[in-house]
Amino acid sequence: MQKRCGAQTVLFANPVGIMAAASIVGPKEGEGPLGAKFDRVEKDPMLGVESWEKAESELVKAAAKAAAEKARVAMDDFDYIIAGDLMNQSTGSIFGLRETMRPYLGIFGACSAIGEGMSIGGMLIDGGFASKVLCLASSHFCSAEKQFRFPLEFGSQRPPTSSWTVTGAAGVVLGAAAGPSVMGCTTGKMIDMGVKDAHNMGAAMAGAAADTIAAHFEDASRTADYYDLIITGDLGYVGQELLLELMKKKGHDIAHKHRDCGIEIFDRNTQDTHSGGSGCACSGVVFAAFFLERMKSGEIGRILFVPTGALMSPVSVQQGESIPGIAHAVVIENVRTCGQ
Amino acid sequence: MQKRCGAQTVLFANPVGIMAAASIVGPKEGEGPLGAKFDRVEKDPMLGVESWEKAESELVKAAAKAAAEKARVAMDDFDYIIAGDLMNQSTGSIFGLRETMRPYLGIFGACSAIGEGMSIGGMLIDGGFASKVLCLASSHFCSAEKQFRFPLEFGSQRPPTSSWTVTGAAGVVLGAAAGPSVMGCTTGKMIDMGVKDAHNMGAAMAGAAADTIAAHFEDASRTADYYDLIITGDLGYVGQELLLELMKKKGHDIAHKHRDCGIEIFDRNTQDTHSGGSGCACSGVVFAAFFLERMKSGEIGRILFVPTGALMSPVSVQQGESIPGIAHAVVIENVRTCGQ
Repeated sequence: MQKRCGAQTVLFANPVGIMAAASIVGPKEGEGPLGAKFDRVEKDPMLGVESWEKAESELVKAAAKAAAEKARVAMDDFDYIIAGDLMNQSTGSIFGLRETMRPYLGIFGACSAIGEGMSIGGMLIDGGFASKVLCLASSHFCSAEKQFRFPLEFGSQRPPTSSWTVTGAAGVVLGAAAGPSVMGCTTGKMIDMGVKDAHNMGAAMAGAAADTIAAHFEDASRTADYYDLIITGDLGYVGQELLLELMKKKGHDIAHKHRDCGIEIFDRNTQDTHSGGSGCACSGVVFAAFFLERMKSGEIGRILFVPTGALMSPVSVQQGESIPGIAHAVVIENVRTCGQ
Repeated sequence: MQKRCGAQTVLFANPVGIMAAASIVGPKEGEGPLGAKFDRVEKDPMLGVESWEKAESELVKAAAKAAAEKARVAMDDFDYIIAGDLMNQSTGSIFGLRETMRPYLGIFGACSAIGEGMSIGGMLIDGGFASKVLCLASSHFCSAEKQFRFPLEFGSQRPPTSSWTVTGAAGVVLGAAAGPSVMGCTTGKMIDMGVKDAHNMGAAMAGAAADTIAAHFEDASRTADYYDLIITGDLGYVGQELLLELMKKKGHDIAHKHRDCGIEIFDRNTQDTHSGGSGCACSGVVFAAFFLERMKSGEIGRILFVPTGALMSPVSVQQGESIPGIAHAVVIENVRTCGQ
């Protein structure tokens, strides 16, 4: 089988099963519309440790443990752990996972991390290099605000375009195929729309999401009709509007199929989260707790999961750089295997 | 062919050729013992732009262009670009590569980046997902000092254990096999020796290097005899001493086979670089300009290339965390192909 399919897409020779996925979130996420679906809602956003950064690492540690347990895989049986987060030098992932003692591949794709991880992990399994891979992504509202925007104590007003970084971590176990499986991926290019406003990530990422989804359609000779849902990571309300408009310009109407994890996770009317949720954890925990479960129940059969990332650092923003976006699409389909 | 070989190692079904590798460095590196071997020595460490961070991105851009030209591959023909650096949110790689418009996989493995990139890139090619992959790694003395240690203007005294971050970028093009080829890789675990001194990276990384090399020997049933050279990334003099001692304790004497890119790149006596060179660019440019050329000339036939990384952020150090190390080993052998 030819695995390479067009300029940015690969389709696997065999389905790569999603053995389990776990979601750990903070209290605000627990109060949102998906609250009851998460594997664990932490009551204390500090998780009993003395800094936000260490709290994020605790979330990663908990998500790794929960995902492994749900998949019934011992930590020692993972051939690779692939993880990424928003913090400088991947502090969240590294200090959350240093005790795992497994081959570790650190990634950086901003909030697209879980998409990048599942793409690489899927290829490593389909390529015969691994049997089981654990993919992780995390973010923490407080560590992200501190790092990218203003000190929380400053109490700055947030503009309506801003999104709320999700406090949480997600773990996805890839391995033997059964039920929802990764069938391939379309790896995104960096797309720079010239947006310079760190309080408008949706606008910075919409172009990348549109580019990747359109590339996937072209590469795989598909349209939106192929999928039950096309799910972006954290475009929020502002980014969703732009995405749908950009897709129309490219000749695709995806409005009826589109969902965004950033829109799903918070209640716009009661939670004061403006454009929606964001952060590496956003797409990961919403996928794990909500969309994957809907696939398992048979409610939906095929999704294009497209985590989105805004590529910036505090220094790049201060130096007047724009914010390129990136989006990695993962094809997930319900597969019936022998004996089921 | 069984590709998985032991707990951390894969051996490829087919050799993945190193089509070309390029090295761009700053003036201090140009004055070192390998100065004449680099593809380009920039006279201006600012590269004509207004910040150190932007200068690092210029190095990345130049290395990508030079590597593609040396390999005679058009930028549009790369199936993936894989890149990493030391800066917050991979600023060096992202702003150096945003105009490439190719599928982009960002990685973070600190100074082990080129090893992680060549490992993932090799697997993607051997797995049938890509024909040509461009792997990049970069660092800049000034952006690294500013970020991890003290403002340069402060003029702080550097302890003898400290290393000098290499200003440069390396690009390695993986593709069709011919001559020096990647045959497999051993992906490292995070190894925390409890070192908390950000001025002693060699000590922080030596344990990881020893762990990965010993794991490779065990997984592949090899000893140091199999290789002409075992080349670590940036342990420097302090780290080398520790590595050799740790390897002896594990039952392997590699002293006669060991080289370290951080030791090769600067002249200890005249360049005031203390324990040696470091940074993501260190292993990349020394491999590209020196060891790969020695392989091409037939002088050496088999190497284990082991870029090493110290996993820390300014925040993790300030919060009293230790510095875990990681090392990714890449097996490179001279392959004779049909018609040569």
